[in-house]
Amino acid sequence: MAHIEITNGQPGITGLMIQRPDTAAPLNLLAETLLRGPLTLSRGERELIAAYTSELNTTPFCSGSHSAFAAAQLEGGHDLVKSVLHDPDAAPISPKLRALLAIAAEVRGEVRAVSQEAVAAAREAGADDAEIHDTVLIAASFCLFNRYVTCLDTEEPADAGYYDVSAQRIVEHGYGAAVASAR
Amino acid sequence: MAHIEITNGQPGITGLMIQRPDTAAPLNLLAETLLRGPLTLSRGERELIAAYTSELNTTPFCSGSHSAFAAAQLEGGHDLVKSVLHDPDAAPISPKLRALLAIAAEVRGEVRAVSQEAVAAAREAGADDAEIHDTVLIAASFCLFNRYVTCLDTEEPADAGYYDVSAQRIVEHGYGAAVASAR
Repeated sequence: MAHIEITNGQPGITGLMIQRPDTAAPLNLLAETLLRGPLTLSRGERELIAAYTSELNTTPFCSGSHSAFAAAQLEGGHDLVKSVLHDPDAAPISPKLRALLAIAAEVRGEVRAVSQEAVAAAREAGADDAEIHDTVLIAASFCLFNRYVTCLDTEEPADAGYYDVSAQRIVEHGYGAAVASAR
Repeated sequence: MAHIEITNGQPGITGLMIQRPDTAAPLNLLAETLLRGPLTLSRGERELIAAYTSELNTTPFCSGSHSAFAAAQLEGGHDLVKSVLHDPDAAPISPKLRALLAIAAEVRGEVRAVSQEAVAAAREAGADDAEIHDTVLIAASFCLFNRYVTCLDTEEPADAGYYDVSAQRIVEHGYGAAVASAR
């Protein structure tokens, strides 16, 4: 049972957002901007950074959700996402995305500057300032979302198909719509 | 020098927000909602939770900023804020705020559920579900803001009076206005 009473019966961040539409609004705008807004990394790549950060932060609800959202928007689907979460160094992804995932891994750890080596490796692989910025901000944002979900001890979904159903909604209608339709 | 080029010469998150108004918008809305929106904890108490989390996360820009914003909105001013950052157990604050700061300290650490003991202690001291929720979300949000500022290795302000000048702007006009006026 969660640390606070969730009266709508929904799992993870969905339950929190339905319960608290006042704080859901900026959180959904943040997710929409970072994961679906007009940035140079593809939506699938950004969802992969979100899923990978959530996996390292041991938050199954976010890892499951954003893995499904990434799988729905990347050619390799669930197999590719699983291989990245298991070992990004061995996964069939671009050297640039691999280098950005390494930056995300540093961001989600202790609060300190990303290493010069990780930034240099990302630049060498073709990442520009905006992509380095966006990766850091996505990984930092999942340090928020993961803690929100995990620290309040929210429930995981009972149904194994939950995340793929959510993915359809997110891909078609974006963040915010997911909460509205679960209400 | 920061990991990405900041062309506006401003320190900390201000430089990042002026550079990237697209991502600044949801971040400012989040800060405005959590730190100044209509919640039951006072604005000064919420800024204190933000300052304390930032201090534990060793992010001087955020700790300095939100300490000044807290001091401007709490009767004890800078002396009270300093005593809380130094040792909340000895600081002259309410048992409820002390218990909520202990929750914030747990949130900013490893990603795991807040302890039953910390939640029970907050309830015992008079905190309700909404205040526990808001404390967790504020501390989690500063796990984002602190990483954004520190992981990108942004500069600290050169002028020691910077934070108190910012505080006047925030208290009068809110988040968002601070970025607009520094532009």
